[in-house]
Amino acid sequence: MKIDIYAAQNSVQEKELKDRTVVVVDVFRATTTIITALHNGCREVIPVAGIEEAIAFSRNYDKNAFLLGGERNTHKIDGFDLSNSPSEYTRQMVEGRTILMTTTNGTKAVRKTHEAKEVLIAGFVNGDAIAAYLAKLRDDVTFVCAGTDGKFSLEDILAVGAMLSKLENMESEITLDDLGLVCVHMYKMYRNNLKEFLKETNHYRRLVSEKLENDIDVCLELNSIPVVPTYKDGVIRLNAKAH
Amino acid sequence: MKIDIYAAQNSVQEKELKDRTVVVVDVFRATTTIITALHNGCREVIPVAGIEEAIAFSRNYDKNAFLLGGERNTHKIDGFDLSNSPSEYTRQMVEGRTILMTTTNGTKAVRKTHEAKEVLIAGFVNGDAIAAYLAKLRDDVTFVCAGTDGKFSLEDILAVGAMLSKLENMESEITLDDLGLVCVHMYKMYRNNLKEFLKETNHYRRLVSEKLENDIDVCLELNSIPVVPTYKDGVIRLNAKAH
Repeated sequence: MKIDIYAAQNSVQEKELKDRTVVVVDVFRATTTIITALHNGCREVIPVAGIEEAIAFSRNYDKNAFLLGGERNTHKIDGFDLSNSPSEYTRQMVEGRTILMTTTNGTKAVRKTHEAKEVLIAGFVNGDAIAAYLAKLRDDVTFVCAGTDGKFSLEDILAVGAMLSKLENMESEITLDDLGLVCVHMYKMYRNNLKEFLKETNHYRRLVSEKLENDIDVCLELNSIPVVPTYKDGVIRLNAKAH
Repeated sequence: MKIDIYAAQNSVQEKELKDRTVVVVDVFRATTTIITALHNGCREVIPVAGIEEAIAFSRNYDKNAFLLGGERNTHKIDGFDLSNSPSEYTRQMVEGRTILMTTTNGTKAVRKTHEAKEVLIAGFVNGDAIAAYLAKLRDDVTFVCAGTDGKFSLEDILAVGAMLSKLENMESEITLDDLGLVCVHMYKMYRNNLKEFLKETNHYRRLVSEKLENDIDVCLELNSIPVVPTYKDGVIRLNAKAH
């Protein structure tokens, strides 16, 4: 089982993901928010590239059937129903709804996978569930981290490390690329101290400065939401095979 | 002093390096070979993009004045005088010569910096010398790792970690991006065990399979060649200010 990791969505080309099994990771906060929404009964999440595309797309739906969610540079978008905070995607808010979502990096990462064979949406919150699904699949895997503004984001690297560590315990033959080795080593070193370690990073500091520290806690809670969302034909839903 | 790191030359755009102080790192083996050649009295190294460009360029020189060096996918190029092995660039071979050099990733990384303010050529072999030079400069710095086939290469990350660790000891105010934090942590964890750790990586294995294990030892020898080469107007020479 050969594992490749890309540290930022803009360092991977769509053609490199064609016919691959891909796992998309954007811990702070897009994938965590998508996982939370689906777990709370949201019917489906449709990742859209731009704000205008989201608004145009929403015209196809009954006003009560959908919600617009997302952010640009951590901030809620004018005219949208929800920002990119997992705590806003409560059962009361999202049950039975379709969510059109656009974020700075995460939804772009998801959309790059449209030619992949299978696409899973992952974070710390569903790390073991994703690892267990991959172990059953026994296919080569490409992890695509969203990154922040095209750069390496440590929280994503640590989440990939959590999944790879679990996978190593379940699957004896794993070949990691160099970034995969780093993910596993960093996770094993800081697994009991994630938040303290992430305090040094820009993304963490930006969330704290926006008074979003609660989101950080929610996003780092390993295995709190053991579901497997998949992206297929432009739509993210819970994977029927996995549940 | 703000430090940015790119893990592979193809994830950085030339415009992002414009007017910056840039350090290029390709431990296995281009930058180590360039540093070795200059230390052994080579007049200058001219990085060229392609094999045909190298041959065309060489026609401007007297046949005895220049050498053609480089590799494609670890192998020596047909018609070239030297491959990309630092041990070939002896004083006897290179003294007083101009070397036209082209490699799979390293020379591409150097050429991407042509609009930068100042460009330094670094590896483990001159790590402390580069750190000392940067500490005096007191400017923001961008490290560009060559990577291997566009991907993250662990040996480059560890070499950047070595330089940043030294810089941290000399310069109190350093701000690292997320990849910089990883470089420092990984280096501090494996500094006494570099070769053992790198044995897990593809690049290491490829060099061993090509019977180039001696090159690995040479490239990992910290501070064995304390010089500061700079790239300016298309040419790499030893920096007069630093020596």
